Amino acid sequence: MTRYGAMFGPDITFLGVERCDLGDPETYRGADVVVLGAPFDGGTSHRPGARFGPQAVRQACYLGHDGSRPSLALRVDGLADLVVRDAGDVETYAGDIETALANIEEAVHKIAASGAIPVVLGGDHTIALPDARGVARHHGFGRVSMLHFDAHADTGEIEFGHLHGHGQPMRRLIESGAIRGDRFLQVGLRGYWPGPDILGWMAEQRMRSYEMTEIVARGLEDCLTEAFAIAVDDCDGVHLSVDIDVADPGHAPGTGTPEPGGLTGRQLLDAVRRACYELPVVGVEVVEVAPPYDHADITAALANRVVLEALSAIARRRADARGGVEGRVWDPRLPLLEGRG
Amino acid sequence: MTRYGAMFGPDITFLGVERCDLGDPETYRGADVVVLGAPFDGGTSHRPGARFGPQAVRQACYLGHDGSRPSLALRVDGLADLVVRDAGDVETYAGDIETALANIEEAVHKIAASGAIPVVLGGDHTIALPDARGVARHHGFGRVSMLHFDAHADTGEIEFGHLHGHGQPMRRLIESGAIRGDRFLQVGLRGYWPGPDILGWMAEQRMRSYEMTEIVARGLEDCLTEAFAIAVDDCDGVHLSVDIDVADPGHAPGTGTPEPGGLTGRQLLDAVRRACYELPVVGVEVVEVAPPYDHADITAALANRVVLEALSAIARRRADARGGVEGRVWDPRLPLLEGRG
Amino acid sequence: MTRYGAMFGPDITFLGVERCDLGDPETYRGADVVVLGAPFDGGTSHRPGARFGPQAVRQACYLGHDGSRPSLALRVDGLADLVVRDAGDVETYAGDIETALANIEEAVHKIAASGAIPVVLGGDHTIALPDARGVARHHGFGRVSMLHFDAHADTGEIEFGHLHGHGQPMRRLIESGAIRGDRFLQVGLRGYWPGPDILGWMAEQRMRSYEMTEIVARGLEDCLTEAFAIAVDDCDGVHLSVDIDVADPGHAPGTGTPEPGGLTGRQLLDAVRRACYELPVVGVEVVEVAPPYDHADITAALANRVVLEALSAIARRRADARGGVEGRVWDPRLPLLEGRG
Amino acid sequence: MTRYGAMFGPDITFLGVERCDLGDPETYRGADVVVLGAPFDGGTSHRPGARFGPQAVRQACYLGHDGSRPSLALRVDGLADLVVRDAGDVETYAGDIETALANIEEAVHKIAASGAIPVVLGGDHTIALPDARGVARHHGFGRVSMLHFDAHADTGEIEFGHLHGHGQPMRRLIESGAIRGDRFLQVGLRGYWPGPDILGWMAEQRMRSYEMTEIVARGLEDCLTEAFAIAVDDCDGVHLSVDIDVADPGHAPGTGTPEPGGLTGRQLLDAVRRACYELPVVGVEVVEVAPPYDHADITAALANRVVLEALSAIARRRADARGGVEGRVWDPRLPLLEGRG
Amino acid sequence: MTRYGAMFGPDITFLGVERCDLGDPETYRGADVVVLGAPFDGGTSHRPGARFGPQAVRQACYLGHDGSRPSLALRVDGLADLVVRDAGDVETYAGDIETALANIEEAVHKIAASGAIPVVLGGDHTIALPDARGVARHHGFGRVSMLHFDAHADTGEIEFGHLHGHGQPMRRLIESGAIRGDRFLQVGLRGYWPGPDILGWMAEQRMRSYEMTEIVARGLEDCLTEAFAIAVDDCDGVHLSVDIDVADPGHAPGTGTPEPGGLTGRQLLDAVRRACYELPVVGVEVVEVAPPYDHADITAALANRVVLEALSAIARRRADARGGVEGRVWDPRLPLLEGRG
Amino acid sequence: MTRYGAMFGPDITFLGVERCDLGDPETYRGADVVVLGAPFDGGTSHRPGARFGPQAVRQACYLGHDGSRPSLALRVDGLADLVVRDAGDVETYAGDIETALANIEEAVHKIAASGAIPVVLGGDHTIALPDARGVARHHGFGRVSMLHFDAHADTGEIEFGHLHGHGQPMRRLIESGAIRGDRFLQVGLRGYWPGPDILGWMAEQRMRSYEMTEIVARGLEDCLTEAFAIAVDDCDGVHLSVDIDVADPGHAPGTGTPEPGGLTGRQLLDAVRRACYELPVVGVEVVEVAPPYDHADITAALANRVVLEALSAIARRRADARGGVEGRVWDPRLPLLEGRG
Repeated sequence: MTRYGAMFGPDITFLGVERCDLGDPETYRGADVVVLGAPFDGGTSHRPGARFGPQAVRQACYLGHDGSRPSLALRVDGLADLVVRDAGDVETYAGDIETALANIEEAVHKIAASGAIPVVLGGDHTIALPDARGVARHHGFGRVSMLHFDAHADTGEIEFGHLHGHGQPMRRLIESGAIRGDRFLQVGLRGYWPGPDILGWMAEQRMRSYEMTEIVARGLEDCLTEAFAIAVDDCDGVHLSVDIDVADPGHAPGTGTPEPGGLTGRQLLDAVRRACYELPVVGVEVVEVAPPYDHADITAALANRVVLEALSAIARRRADARGGVEGRVWDPRLPLLEGRG
Repeated sequence: MTRYGAMFGPDITFLGVERCDLGDPETYRGADVVVLGAPFDGGTSHRPGARFGPQAVRQACYLGHDGSRPSLALRVDGLADLVVRDAGDVETYAGDIETALANIEEAVHKIAASGAIPVVLGGDHTIALPDARGVARHHGFGRVSMLHFDAHADTGEIEFGHLHGHGQPMRRLIESGAIRGDRFLQVGLRGYWPGPDILGWMAEQRMRSYEMTEIVARGLEDCLTEAFAIAVDDCDGVHLSVDIDVADPGHAPGTGTPEPGGLTGRQLLDAVRRACYELPVVGVEVVEVAPPYDHADITAALANRVVLEALSAIARRRADARGGVEGRVWDPRLPLLEGRG
Repeated sequence: MTRYGAMFGPDITFLGVERCDLGDPETYRGADVVVLGAPFDGGTSHRPGARFGPQAVRQACYLGHDGSRPSLALRVDGLADLVVRDAGDVETYAGDIETALANIEEAVHKIAASGAIPVVLGGDHTIALPDARGVARHHGFGRVSMLHFDAHADTGEIEFGHLHGHGQPMRRLIESGAIRGDRFLQVGLRGYWPGPDILGWMAEQRMRSYEMTEIVARGLEDCLTEAFAIAVDDCDGVHLSVDIDVADPGHAPGTGTPEPGGLTGRQLLDAVRRACYELPVVGVEVVEVAPPYDHADITAALANRVVLEALSAIARRRADARGGVEGRVWDPRLPLLEGRG
Repeated sequence: MTRYGAMFGPDITFLGVERCDLGDPETYRGADVVVLGAPFDGGTSHRPGARFGPQAVRQACYLGHDGSRPSLALRVDGLADLVVRDAGDVETYAGDIETALANIEEAVHKIAASGAIPVVLGGDHTIALPDARGVARHHGFGRVSMLHFDAHADTGEIEFGHLHGHGQPMRRLIESGAIRGDRFLQVGLRGYWPGPDILGWMAEQRMRSYEMTEIVARGLEDCLTEAFAIAVDDCDGVHLSVDIDVADPGHAPGTGTPEPGGLTGRQLLDAVRRACYELPVVGVEVVEVAPPYDHADITAALANRVVLEALSAIARRRADARGGVEGRVWDPRLPLLEGRG
Repeated sequence: MTRYGAMFGPDITFLGVERCDLGDPETYRGADVVVLGAPFDGGTSHRPGARFGPQAVRQACYLGHDGSRPSLALRVDGLADLVVRDAGDVETYAGDIETALANIEEAVHKIAASGAIPVVLGGDHTIALPDARGVARHHGFGRVSMLHFDAHADTGEIEFGHLHGHGQPMRRLIESGAIRGDRFLQVGLRGYWPGPDILGWMAEQRMRSYEMTEIVARGLEDCLTEAFAIAVDDCDGVHLSVDIDVADPGHAPGTGTPEPGGLTGRQLLDAVRRACYELPVVGVEVVEVAPPYDHADITAALANRVVLEALSAIARRRADARGGVEGRVWDPRLPLLEGRG
Repeated sequence: MTRYGAMFGPDITFLGVERCDLGDPETYRGADVVVLGAPFDGGTSHRPGARFGPQAVRQACYLGHDGSRPSLALRVDGLADLVVRDAGDVETYAGDIETALANIEEAVHKIAASGAIPVVLGGDHTIALPDARGVARHHGFGRVSMLHFDAHADTGEIEFGHLHGHGQPMRRLIESGAIRGDRFLQVGLRGYWPGPDILGWMAEQRMRSYEMTEIVARGLEDCLTEAFAIAVDDCDGVHLSVDIDVADPGHAPGTGTPEPGGLTGRQLLDAVRRACYELPVVGVEVVEVAPPYDHADITAALANRVVLEALSAIARRRADARGGVEGRVWDPRLPLLEGRG
């Protein structure tokens, strides 16, 4: 397994961080985070295009691609304070979902086994199966909880005659034992899928799914607090899966199955930040960015910032565990310039 | 009057529900809801394109077009628990507004007279006049109140030398006696139209119009509660008119006269849901979706979900009147999976 | 200095207000407001296109271009109750930033010196330097505070080898003494720029910058109240600078450096309204609208409404200073039609 | 009848030529050409948007809007060597085709009666009826032949229950006697409309229609030569009607009813040039530019150049009638710089 | 095998022709042509989106969807003079290319075996393999020649580890014996793929490939005449495969792998017409229309007309075999209206 | 002068060729061709965006970015048979045209002095001045002729108060003596600029400019033959400057100043091929690709192929000078597969 580079277009890295080659362990030894592209969209049920997600998300930023991004809010540099490498894309072919699953799982497992957090850029949500499995193989089946932001439950049974696709990874993960059903937290669901049968199965697994109605009624913060408590109950790590369609189509038009009525971009960024700051995150994936439908690249930009928020919060979490930054732990009410002069 | 089918493009139905033919009463006998397309945009003062609204709204969904949409939030299926039929489009010609008005009114009246709720897909807002008149002819002039979501009051006097157009239907409705001025509730108004004269006329009619400033200051929920109380005071039914431009242009760019500063998609869906759940709705229209300006079809998708929210809430209202679903009436704080297993 | 007219396309005015010619003082004598286009985008670090901003913002409205816009919310007509003139565009050439700066400053100073409030339509944010300098030259260096809505601090030192560009105007303004650092209020900052060095310089200047995290934690209204108090402390006027990218990319995709997680359009309009109603505004600029990236013109429409909100609020502030409208001062909770009949 | 200005957006003129007011004959006395906008698209059978054609065509040029355009090819300035005025737009309302027809005919007749050539910017092709009628009323019914570039014959009988619309103007013109059927030359027809009945009627009128198959087989030049000979046989003038959809959709995507397989932009420009140079043109119209569907404004740019080619060729025709330019009549093989030094 | 309907969106038919169900032979008994959608894009190497091709091509027409299209050029109605049915889409899943191939081949074979000509709407070019195999299974392996319009040879060996994909169908067809290599005619190749090895293999098969350089040098008509002669030499039928990217990207932007320098839309239509008029066509496919990249739907419109040209020419070929239309065989130089009156 | 990398976005190379660093001569020693990005658009008079041209052109290809492109037509690999390196972008800042000119000239001169052919990717046409000057400084002022494909002469005097910009480089080149006026060949001019004065100056310089009218009348091939003869008369090398707007807007919409009526993409590619095959080309530039206006990336794709045609033809010219490929010199009529087996 040598470095594949980018499948679609030039071989670039996330905002200019250093390359690594999964075939050469020296290149990512000691990394805190390894970015991996999974440009697979053969599992989409409707609009394709997520294959171009990794490349779009890697570069959707107007600043120099210099491997550094100091966060105004968190006072750390998620790319420079952590050791971050980009392994390029896993070769995946839309027409062959089985091979894609196997290759992605293998690549993710390598990363996780090295001690780094894999940050996987989809691709459609099919890749959550091999991604979270690769993570769980290292940390232990049933020892990693799932925090899943999405408009859709992705717990389908068989679709188009297949077990795999972007509507089913969460079911397969639970069935395989990789993730416990009662440590599966879903945030942002809405709309008209799935039907009662599948919801019944989900309930039987004791999943906890926050539909937007509940989120609006109770407040997102309250729901997250509850979910986070479940996530760390008898689990060693948390896998964060962000389907960009959890955001409202106004904020994320460039996706395959847009469902109106979602989170604002601001809410999504804050929720991801909080998750990565408060929880022991061991894997991150950002999926379903479909550039062909993305006006002015705003969806790719949002996904790029989701990654940066995650990395910044992980860095701050670690810094605060070591005593804080500038002598204090993170306080969201602290004015930007206070203590800077 | 035989089935017109679709004027622009193939003859499809709303998400695959069964066809009916207004010329053949048997085809919609016993229907709870009949969908009707009114692809007229000859009344637009600026960007046209709403003629393609009915077709766009009917199909703006990534799920199978199978005539079923189980609502996660409301635990009913608005398309399957109700008897829903689609009568196709009324033939309307942009260049002849008078004939369009007459034909739409006749078609709506047929539907209302059959006992079904007409759900009319515009087209520009001109069609509110024949739509609400068709409804009122059945339920009684002055017996149906109007709940009108819009950025604009649509109470113009004469424009471009004409009495009819998308800026004037609400005035014509009140003048004709179809709808009482003091049972006319407007939500979401903003911007710079109309001027003092027309506002004066509106005040004289004792209309109640909630401009966004008041909505922000008081909260949308509070305003809706007040408006709903007026709507059912000495009226037998409520006509719900949703101009998609009540949503902010970020959430609904594909419309003719976008006015910044509107509701979010989430707010609109929740408001429609609440209206159809709490009020005795007898007519619904969703207008001003202009596909030529709609990036990634997000406006059409929002309108599609407005229709589904309305139908789902109507279905749930009826179910709760019969004793509830799973033994209880609707509770927005109920977790998605509770009681599902 | 004669009237330049429009650099790009036909010579039009903001929504049809009367023309004036800065070379002929008679044409704007007694004006309350003079609109000026500054179609310069040679200072952009990433996406260009803001050169077409002035023309797009002037006409992004579906109503007649008749020089009148009665505000529903404020019950004044910002274009007709004030004397508003449009001086056309300053000739600027993207390739020569120095000349552009000089010409814009000169034109703005002329307007300010006449007693009118200059409303400058960018162009990229580079123009804040000559704009605010032109204002300060008239009102006194250090006598005008800055209220700056933006995703970015724009306080860079040297970029691409240059002192000037859209990332540096705020630093140059403070260095030149035109604006005091401790009367510099920034609202809406977020993201990953600038780094610690520049933030340190900002802190040393005693700037007050509200990053989105603080805004979310405390609430926008609370932050504004605090900022407004600083703005009028020992200053005679306030310069309002609105970079449209302070709004979320979902609401303002058509801009050069979109940063996810910003204000909604509604929040921006309300904040601008409040600023112009509560503060003694002496200059306004709206910048960074980049039409090539603007789907369905929604960003230009938002900027157009930012201008109208500013003018309407200025008009209402003056009216209320004279005793109010219809006998009372502005109340955001007042129903639209109350007192209209 | 006073100057209407522009219906949609600011009141601009074609590339900055002087305004005139049809209500004030002094303003266009002695004009050679008067440009008139006819922003009517209520006659479209499919995609609307041509209402924005006049404004788009007037400004679709990257050069300064200064009322001058020296033609490289023809060595004349179609805007400056002729006296060209722009009368703004006729107020037309999409919903009322009858009034639109009457108002356009009246305005065109005024122009023709003044001795100027009306150059009408559509709008959809419906306007050919009042335009050519207005011209024929001045020059004499039956005395003006028609040279009609189009993908479609536009000779429909009754459509959508109406006599008028963009598929029928040519039939109405012949029926009314304004244009003789045997002096009706159509170039560029193709596709699948109309059917045998209408074609039979056309043959009975002795129209001469060049379908693309014949054009490809014989060559465009040969067909034009033949058509031109008919056009001037026992007629005093030629009316030139250019539907932009005569060009291939690759060259003119922004139109209502695009039919693949048309002329290239180059062919269209050369054909228009030749027509206006060789024939006694008394009226020109360019229609069916639909900006909502126009990527990068290339269709509007093509239409703008069609107008300029027409005016340049008219100017050169007149110059050559007076002895030529630089001592010689136009020669397409003359190198650009020959005789310039 | 029952009627699948449309996979993506509503179940429509090609321009409104009657439906048939491949599971019910009665529904297509006696059909001359059966249209079949193959919405598979799992074989694309770059831009996906061709899955939406069948639906886009079926409806990309501004005329009524009434199952009739009288050809101006050919004086027949390809939809009404032939018995044309639409079988809907074959269910195909992007992630499983093997099943897609099998299902498409089976469906095509059913059609061919019924005596009808299958007209298959892709989908990506992968489908040429099952399509042509399905045809050849009925007519005899080696008895059907291939006329292949494309920018690319599609003769790749193994790509992304697979034998199947849109770059390889032509190799698989020859290897399988379905089509003889020396009866494989390719028109429109250009660009930089494949390399010498694959070209060597092609030469060994005695394929005849017309690259654009040869086409420009010799003329398209001359090349076609030569190719047609080979096609009917010792073969019983011709399979026509049109990859829309054979057209220049200016005429067909909406495709997956656009290669500049191709045919014009006009050339493509004329070539298809000539092929279907002169050759015994037994199968037709039109592939690689990718709606997400298609501005103003011009690529889908071109593909729609490719189908209509094919059907019209087939109809005219049959009519001329029976003695002609209006007493004569087709003559491209015949004026449109001659003999119509 | 170290490697700048890419100014806008990631540091990639043309289709994956090897990097070089102009600051390190070893990295390009022996190169035949060095690609250089000049992402400057501060000289544009209308639409900007060409700053993103270099990155867009480098990657606008659906094939693997592997540094190899075997030409079907020319039977050579322009990237692999030549030694091609990519030096990244020259840092240029839109707001400072003088520095941009100096830096580009210096970089180009370094490349030319090394013996390699600089292939410069613009940027706007301003860069022709430093590019051709850098080339001429090495080969001798007056010793390099210019072959200039463009819609515009680019021979303006002073514009916007400046000597430099994208409308003036050709004048500055002649004035400076870098290029002789009588060895300046322009192909494809059209439209309405410049006026008589500038044309007079051009004639005085004895430039030879082929306007489209002459090209259509005489045929492009004939004009090129004549131009090529002039180009090599008493000159040692030819500089090829391709403004993508020489192509028709239908083929190249993504450019700053589109002028209808241009060459087809096919014509442009063939002309570039012929020029580089027949002439001793010493410099190449491809400019004015403006991605913000480029639908489906077709303009960038065309520019990418212009570069590849140039490199392929240069390679074939060299191969044929050495005896040909497969024993013969290039013959455009040779069938693709002949001699391949």
